[in-house]
Amino acid sequence: MSIRLPDVIRKKRDGKALAPLEIRYVIEQYTADTIPDYQISALLMAIYFNGLNGEELDVWTDAMLHSGVVLTHNHVPGIKVDKHSTGGVGDKISIPLAPAVAACGVPVPMISGRGLGHTGGTLDKLESIPGFNVQLSIDDAKAILQKHGVFLIGQTRDVAPADRKLYALRDVTGTVESIPLIASSIMSKKLAEGIDALVLDVKFGKGAFMRRFEDAQALARTLVSIGRRADKEVHALLTDMNAPLGRMVGNALEIRESLDVLNGGGPDDVRALTVALGAHMVLLGKKAANFDEATAMIEAVLNNGKALQLFADVIAAHGGNAAICENPDLLPAASQTTSVLASASGFVAEIDPMKVAMAALSVNAGRVRKEDAVDPATGVELKVQVGDRVVVGAEVAMLHHNGAGESEALQYLNGAFAMSDVPPVPSPIIREQIV
Amino acid sequence: MSIRLPDVIRKKRDGKALAPLEIRYVIEQYTADTIPDYQISALLMAIYFNGLNGEELDVWTDAMLHSGVVLTHNHVPGIKVDKHSTGGVGDKISIPLAPAVAACGVPVPMISGRGLGHTGGTLDKLESIPGFNVQLSIDDAKAILQKHGVFLIGQTRDVAPADRKLYALRDVTGTVESIPLIASSIMSKKLAEGIDALVLDVKFGKGAFMRRFEDAQALARTLVSIGRRADKEVHALLTDMNAPLGRMVGNALEIRESLDVLNGGGPDDVRALTVALGAHMVLLGKKAANFDEATAMIEAVLNNGKALQLFADVIAAHGGNAAICENPDLLPAASQTTSVLASASGFVAEIDPMKVAMAALSVNAGRVRKEDAVDPATGVELKVQVGDRVVVGAEVAMLHHNGAGESEALQYLNGAFAMSDVPPVPSPIIREQIV
Repeated sequence: MSIRLPDVIRKKRDGKALAPLEIRYVIEQYTADTIPDYQISALLMAIYFNGLNGEELDVWTDAMLHSGVVLTHNHVPGIKVDKHSTGGVGDKISIPLAPAVAACGVPVPMISGRGLGHTGGTLDKLESIPGFNVQLSIDDAKAILQKHGVFLIGQTRDVAPADRKLYALRDVTGTVESIPLIASSIMSKKLAEGIDALVLDVKFGKGAFMRRFEDAQALARTLVSIGRRADKEVHALLTDMNAPLGRMVGNALEIRESLDVLNGGGPDDVRALTVALGAHMVLLGKKAANFDEATAMIEAVLNNGKALQLFADVIAAHGGNAAICENPDLLPAASQTTSVLASASGFVAEIDPMKVAMAALSVNAGRVRKEDAVDPATGVELKVQVGDRVVVGAEVAMLHHNGAGESEALQYLNGAFAMSDVPPVPSPIIREQIV
Repeated sequence: MSIRLPDVIRKKRDGKALAPLEIRYVIEQYTADTIPDYQISALLMAIYFNGLNGEELDVWTDAMLHSGVVLTHNHVPGIKVDKHSTGGVGDKISIPLAPAVAACGVPVPMISGRGLGHTGGTLDKLESIPGFNVQLSIDDAKAILQKHGVFLIGQTRDVAPADRKLYALRDVTGTVESIPLIASSIMSKKLAEGIDALVLDVKFGKGAFMRRFEDAQALARTLVSIGRRADKEVHALLTDMNAPLGRMVGNALEIRESLDVLNGGGPDDVRALTVALGAHMVLLGKKAANFDEATAMIEAVLNNGKALQLFADVIAAHGGNAAICENPDLLPAASQTTSVLASASGFVAEIDPMKVAMAALSVNAGRVRKEDAVDPATGVELKVQVGDRVVVGAEVAMLHHNGAGESEALQYLNGAFAMSDVPPVPSPIIREQIV
């Protein structure tokens, strides 16, 4: 069969389903650089408008996942489980979560991304730990998984190269915001990592990629269905991202907050989400008979220090300074702090996550372009959370900075807090679970 | 103002109108090769789905028309009028039309295209006249216009280069079939030719680019509205292309039929369409007080030999052998002819224009790729038209060929005729006029 790209583009443009052979041809040949960008971008825009049905989506995802190396972890017994979050402000959950789940006996081969735009990346946070190396070889990572039950590494160029190429093109052609393209991008990478089961944290709200709950729900359902049709067990939580998660936004600051959680403390929302996601992972890893038991197991390892000890071991295995677990002051700290004061008395009704993120970005805690370096020490420390009562002039946030971007960051922070005379209606962090 | 292409693409993708500055930036920078194809193809696909409103369309067309040289013919007095056809099988109307209108005193600076796909090009037909040069310099063409009131040339690379670049991209990215993109392509070229008024022949039916009447009507209305907002007088005819126009399909064969029309004869449909389009052009050229007078003028110059004489003069001015006007046997002729016989008795209910076109293409009367050469002598001569009564075994067509492609062509021709026991309901060649 001879496949002509203009015919494939027109077919999708006209709302018809592409044949499996056509999809595999497109992904394989594009990865091999034998189809020009201009035909793929037209096809992506047609997919933006007309979508992909379930079968097309499965083949598209499968073709991307097989565009490069597909990892396996058969050397480690047990059901390997990972977590993926669609990204939010202050989302450091992976850091306490991975060692906690591993401490419950479930192997967690965790591959994370770097931050781009307003959402910080797990890798950037880990790299704020002195010496921590996220760019291990696959063999070294596998050895750590075998010994400690968890690794925390970055994506390698060999895994799902089609996705990397497609994502770069989508980014410059206005074709990012498509549920089938987002879902196949996420799932192709995750399924290529050699996991058996996956827990998804799909965020909605002001600080999320999907602002509307319904869109996040549609994405979550699509992700789950792709995974299940690929014979993986997948659970998804739909979680609220209308305010920053926890009190810390910034790399070393978020490691500090993660250590609080691993010490049995931490802000309520961060602790609750860690426990919930962890319980789902333990359940999928078949180390608990039911959800309540799984929840109790996660709570136990957070409270009894086992998760913290495992994190220390993993830090050491990654070449990092494990002493930060006992002494967080060994983490990089900003040279200056500036307080942000409440402009009125009342209840904190809203903390705009985008403004907090932009403040953190202004002091270089995040990156605008892929090639930008991040400052490990800077960021925003919230002194209040939504629902807290404050009096005018009280400290609501502290900016940690190294001189650059202070005034811009303060401008964002001064506009980030909305006050109210009445307490806001509390909204649960977890809106829906797909199990 | 800084314009970012991803923002422009997303804006159109989300159904918003582009600002004039954005459109001009896109067309200018794309013509200058500073915007990559992959962004433009995504934008074109977004336009395919979300269209362009009237103001966007005018700016888009204007930007394309000003992407290169804009011709003027102020050296010739009078209202300069051209005709454009969206293309059909056997459409040789331009050839008798241009000299007939010029013979009525209306200057006709006619710039035509080559054939690609199933529709033959006026230039290919003219070039079947020995010596005829369609690639004159603009100065030479202007001199012929001044002396004879008409020139018949090909598009130059200097006119509307943005359209050439965009068309090539649309052709390989499934974005040809968009009314605003088709309309702006046509009108940018026509408006750059220095005309004052334009008559459009927009075809619908089996042998037309627009198969559905409603689509052709929408295109015609769009074309007319662009022209009128650019202060040009534009009339449009919606004409039937469910059967080949006339009896001849092929380059020299169509010149022969054109000469018949210029001698006051020719098939009824070709004559009728030539007279109708000519009358509109004469009316727009303000050489007649009303449509009836304009019609009578065109009929007169076809019947009294004045149009034929002017065609002979124009052929000579273009370096061609004007003696073909007196002796059509000087035109190239195919070495072989093969008869196609009726397989049943009855009325000719349909003659499939695509099958006739494919037959002509099989014997190299047209081209599949831009760089293909065409055979001037080959083609299809229909011996019947729709509505004619035939008996089984009667000759319904004659294939003119030079050996190559005969059996393939005959296969097409044998399937091209549908017979009926009852006479078909005649359909008028002109379905609607927009004046």
